[in-house]
Amino acid sequence: MIRVGVVGATGYAGAELVRILAGHPGVELRLLTSRQHAGAAFSDIYPAMAGIVDIPCEAYNADAVADRTDVVFFALPHQLPMGLVPELMDRGRRIVDLSADFRFQNADVYERHYQPHTARELLPQAVYGLSEVYRDRIRKADLIGNPGCYPTSVLLPLIPLIREGLLEPRSLIADAKSGVSGAGRSPARATLFCEVAESFKPYKVGAHRHTPEMEEVLTREAGDSIRLTFVPHLVPMSRGMLTTLYGQTKKGVDEAAVKNCLARFYPDSPFVRICPKGRPPDTRNVRGTNYCDIGFYLERGTGRLILMSAIDNLVKGAAGQAVQNMNLMLGLAETEGLTAIPAPL
Amino acid sequence: MIRVGVVGATGYAGAELVRILAGHPGVELRLLTSRQHAGAAFSDIYPAMAGIVDIPCEAYNADAVADRTDVVFFALPHQLPMGLVPELMDRGRRIVDLSADFRFQNADVYERHYQPHTARELLPQAVYGLSEVYRDRIRKADLIGNPGCYPTSVLLPLIPLIREGLLEPRSLIADAKSGVSGAGRSPARATLFCEVAESFKPYKVGAHRHTPEMEEVLTREAGDSIRLTFVPHLVPMSRGMLTTLYGQTKKGVDEAAVKNCLARFYPDSPFVRICPKGRPPDTRNVRGTNYCDIGFYLERGTGRLILMSAIDNLVKGAAGQAVQNMNLMLGLAETEGLTAIPAPL
Amino acid sequence: MIRVGVVGATGYAGAELVRILAGHPGVELRLLTSRQHAGAAFSDIYPAMAGIVDIPCEAYNADAVADRTDVVFFALPHQLPMGLVPELMDRGRRIVDLSADFRFQNADVYERHYQPHTARELLPQAVYGLSEVYRDRIRKADLIGNPGCYPTSVLLPLIPLIREGLLEPRSLIADAKSGVSGAGRSPARATLFCEVAESFKPYKVGAHRHTPEMEEVLTREAGDSIRLTFVPHLVPMSRGMLTTLYGQTKKGVDEAAVKNCLARFYPDSPFVRICPKGRPPDTRNVRGTNYCDIGFYLERGTGRLILMSAIDNLVKGAAGQAVQNMNLMLGLAETEGLTAIPAPL
Amino acid sequence: MIRVGVVGATGYAGAELVRILAGHPGVELRLLTSRQHAGAAFSDIYPAMAGIVDIPCEAYNADAVADRTDVVFFALPHQLPMGLVPELMDRGRRIVDLSADFRFQNADVYERHYQPHTARELLPQAVYGLSEVYRDRIRKADLIGNPGCYPTSVLLPLIPLIREGLLEPRSLIADAKSGVSGAGRSPARATLFCEVAESFKPYKVGAHRHTPEMEEVLTREAGDSIRLTFVPHLVPMSRGMLTTLYGQTKKGVDEAAVKNCLARFYPDSPFVRICPKGRPPDTRNVRGTNYCDIGFYLERGTGRLILMSAIDNLVKGAAGQAVQNMNLMLGLAETEGLTAIPAPL
Repeated sequence: MIRVGVVGATGYAGAELVRILAGHPGVELRLLTSRQHAGAAFSDIYPAMAGIVDIPCEAYNADAVADRTDVVFFALPHQLPMGLVPELMDRGRRIVDLSADFRFQNADVYERHYQPHTARELLPQAVYGLSEVYRDRIRKADLIGNPGCYPTSVLLPLIPLIREGLLEPRSLIADAKSGVSGAGRSPARATLFCEVAESFKPYKVGAHRHTPEMEEVLTREAGDSIRLTFVPHLVPMSRGMLTTLYGQTKKGVDEAAVKNCLARFYPDSPFVRICPKGRPPDTRNVRGTNYCDIGFYLERGTGRLILMSAIDNLVKGAAGQAVQNMNLMLGLAETEGLTAIPAPL
Repeated sequence: MIRVGVVGATGYAGAELVRILAGHPGVELRLLTSRQHAGAAFSDIYPAMAGIVDIPCEAYNADAVADRTDVVFFALPHQLPMGLVPELMDRGRRIVDLSADFRFQNADVYERHYQPHTARELLPQAVYGLSEVYRDRIRKADLIGNPGCYPTSVLLPLIPLIREGLLEPRSLIADAKSGVSGAGRSPARATLFCEVAESFKPYKVGAHRHTPEMEEVLTREAGDSIRLTFVPHLVPMSRGMLTTLYGQTKKGVDEAAVKNCLARFYPDSPFVRICPKGRPPDTRNVRGTNYCDIGFYLERGTGRLILMSAIDNLVKGAAGQAVQNMNLMLGLAETEGLTAIPAPL
Repeated sequence: MIRVGVVGATGYAGAELVRILAGHPGVELRLLTSRQHAGAAFSDIYPAMAGIVDIPCEAYNADAVADRTDVVFFALPHQLPMGLVPELMDRGRRIVDLSADFRFQNADVYERHYQPHTARELLPQAVYGLSEVYRDRIRKADLIGNPGCYPTSVLLPLIPLIREGLLEPRSLIADAKSGVSGAGRSPARATLFCEVAESFKPYKVGAHRHTPEMEEVLTREAGDSIRLTFVPHLVPMSRGMLTTLYGQTKKGVDEAAVKNCLARFYPDSPFVRICPKGRPPDTRNVRGTNYCDIGFYLERGTGRLILMSAIDNLVKGAAGQAVQNMNLMLGLAETEGLTAIPAPL
Repeated sequence: MIRVGVVGATGYAGAELVRILAGHPGVELRLLTSRQHAGAAFSDIYPAMAGIVDIPCEAYNADAVADRTDVVFFALPHQLPMGLVPELMDRGRRIVDLSADFRFQNADVYERHYQPHTARELLPQAVYGLSEVYRDRIRKADLIGNPGCYPTSVLLPLIPLIREGLLEPRSLIADAKSGVSGAGRSPARATLFCEVAESFKPYKVGAHRHTPEMEEVLTREAGDSIRLTFVPHLVPMSRGMLTTLYGQTKKGVDEAAVKNCLARFYPDSPFVRICPKGRPPDTRNVRGTNYCDIGFYLERGTGRLILMSAIDNLVKGAAGQAVQNMNLMLGLAETEGLTAIPAPL
């Protein structure tokens, strides 16, 4: 039995990790930390878990983490993990970090958008945990920089087409829409019920920190500098992310080419589902699951490709993909612990 | 492997049955029927299930049902099951019916509130499927009248106190609040998004057909005629039911007496959770699960007891309890297939 | 033109006051204060108001308030108004206070549930601003303690029956349900979108501070000590309050008696609408308006009366009733500035 | 006093017309028709209007309409108005039609996307009612084809830039998001609360009938054939529409050029508000009002312009703009009856 811990267990992504890991047949949940709720039972913070996960939340203690776990998930705000991960790595723990701290290969880009990086030496060995795309490298990794939710929703549909060169690299636009849980559980006026209900709006236009993350990956995949126009929007719902991508196809690319490209890329990826023509993805269909549903429409006349993806921002966009990465790292079945059946509503 | 079928699989309760049964390790989903969607794959109707439940919906055919299943769940509108169940019973199938057709022992009461009963001869052997209360009889039953959602939410907290005679029988009030899914999936103006959002209202005041169902059970349990004042309300959310019950305690009944009464009744009932003092039940905490969370508050001075219960109307209030009853009938573990871990949000 | 000011203009009740007063033909909005947003234009805080109310929010300054206004609305947290109101009263300003500070005649009760009262000398002249009930006293008042939202929803349907002695005084139960805006605009985990959506729950059971407020008024009206069992619940919607009241009628009270009692009490009250039989009140129907819709159902057999009321907690439950009280104080038409037509959805 | 009637008064757009017209100081609501609810009082169908609009709904009768109204609003499904309008035009009534029947100058385009047009002879005199853009022609019109909600949200921000030639005509993309009320009040599974809540999805990708409407107008304005890539999405809220537009600026176009272009176009348009930099439009801010809030962001490096607009789909996108057009036709102040102050939440 693999022993796992969650550092930062009471935020939304952390709690979702707890939910998934508590039902994972191959691991044992041995340690939960929470700065704010140290001393409380997890089920006091999340009463839904009464009788299911009643172990206490603890203050972070590196010795305790190193002694009692084999794999550690970090669900902390950016900047904190890079201060804690190096010591655990030295002591042989394997890490899946959900923050941005280990997502960038180029530390300068990270520093331009976040803050000075204090664990640069680990970046070369950190693997970007986009499971379906970097499966082989993830299998051998000890440190995963788990992708952001927006990047997951953008990159899964886009990378197959970029790799095959089907799209004009200067034409890419991602119009993304996220449920409110992406903003986390810290009290904030902007995410109060009364501020969000009956409201739909763009935010951080031209300024979201997921843009450089996506551009680094896309540029690497294209072998050519790629700029992405990215506009995130806030949807009055708790969970779910739907991204609508627009790109100009290269001459001669037709519907079959797109379809085949996606089919070739995702034949053995149980969590990627290609939607049949005429039924676009819907966040509802992936709620609470690790699926990424992908659909597309090629506009005649303009040659413009509309790619659509739906994920649950807390699962495939965070905790679910983190567990999928752990499964890969440990040689478990990729779907283990992730087979929750979606609810009809 | 037990072979099961769901008759009426595409309504909300039916689809929830499909979701639960598809993940149940002890059964095999062999047959789904749908009047409206016969011929379509289940996952065409519920795309969330693509790759999970792709078997077709069929028109109802008694031979097919009898040949291919051991246990049959009926999730049809009232009146239809009593026309179909007798033949299947004759052929040895075991039945869990989610309609009202087999919930009443007194057929006259049924007829007063529904319509003429055409299978009265089956009523004596039908068992009211309130799992925690009638466990022993359910284990031996071949035909279950699965309780309504409101009755489940009212009876689970109330019956222990009624059996022990702690409450004045003429004092009972149930103020119940339900999510919209209780109204089903048939298109209706009253359940359109724009009619329900930002709306909270009572409905069918003094006229809901769950009242006689509850009164029959309570009267039987009390050994005395019981009237229940019952007011249902509609909440702008999809799932969940919260019932607030008011009753006058008899002289000398104190908080400990109530607490002990509930504790004595539900020691081996994994799906009933008694909430700690000061933390009332919340539909959120049982969403998607078979739990019934119960809390109470005894008002000093007035001696009035406030009992509160929360269930998911589609799970403990319908499909989940139906599967729990099947488990009991088949001698499986009561929780089998029902251990979904609730989501933090 | 009457000059008005709003102290605490950027909370939800304050902003609703601004909305109503900005459209009121008989007053001029001359001063807004906000501790937190002093210096900002009101429309920077509420961009919906761009081009409509662009005047700045100021820090509170007694001289400025006294110089520039005739009537002052206080929409501050409890405890603050009683420190500021006396000086303004001395300087001849008329006050409508939306906090609890001037709602109680018995200062000891206030102190038991809130904190020491530092302006007890004003209580004898403060009038409880339940407009339809205390109209005559409000007309002559200089200081209004504007009722809480729950008390408004409970007292308007109940007082006519209590005054006429139609109900048993020991039988009263109020099961109340409120939209989230009642909790205000301060960031708090409990009112985050993700905590409230798909959640319905009771809160502060047996401990809500509106209970003593209601009991003081009811006791006064009944001429007899009245206890009220009161359970508030939180509804996943922004605005609206629906209260379901239960009471035992005295012998001989029939439907006509209840109907006539209400009709006698509210003949000249344009904001009270009695719902026809079979159509219970719905918060939707009063959203954004100053209406209180009242319905009832008398249960045969038990003689139990079910009274239902719907208000918008921010309008009739706060800002709207405050303006209605100002109209009465100033001798304006009671409905002036309050004739917004409700939206169909 | 102008006498007005609403044909099709009980759908959402019709009811919103009733709401606005009932509060309009310059008109008198004289006639409401409803196929489905003929004979009922309007306030029976919309109890929110009890005591406000209690006049009956009538079956459509051309004589009654012609006799009792000066201006007639049609809020019927496409195809019905073109059968009724000609007779009323002959009898001198002035018409604002909210369907698509009189929106197209080119009847062939209409017929390709709708059905055969039976009143082609009226198209030359019908004016497309985009109030701010075609104000002068609307003033003289007797027949208005009121724009669709999506076209309003797309054309108001886009036309100024198109007219001045600031954008590449082949680069235009509109990613639009609408609240559910756009789908109307007829019972349909797709708009049930339980189908829409916690769901976000594109629909009718490449197939929405508002596309040809927008392309006809844009082509006319550009003096050049324009193709628009248009993807509508459904948002789990009742009201509101947010459109994010993407277009390539021509060489040399900078932020000031965009800003000035919009400022030049909308100086005397009280319903168009240009948002300050860094605060994108939000449907919340225009809810229940006739405003169109417009914001933009010019992306450095790519030269891509992101234009954002927010309207209330039922007001500026339907009933409000219809009344604005009536005001223009009648020589009233453009804002008359449309000055409702937006609610803070």
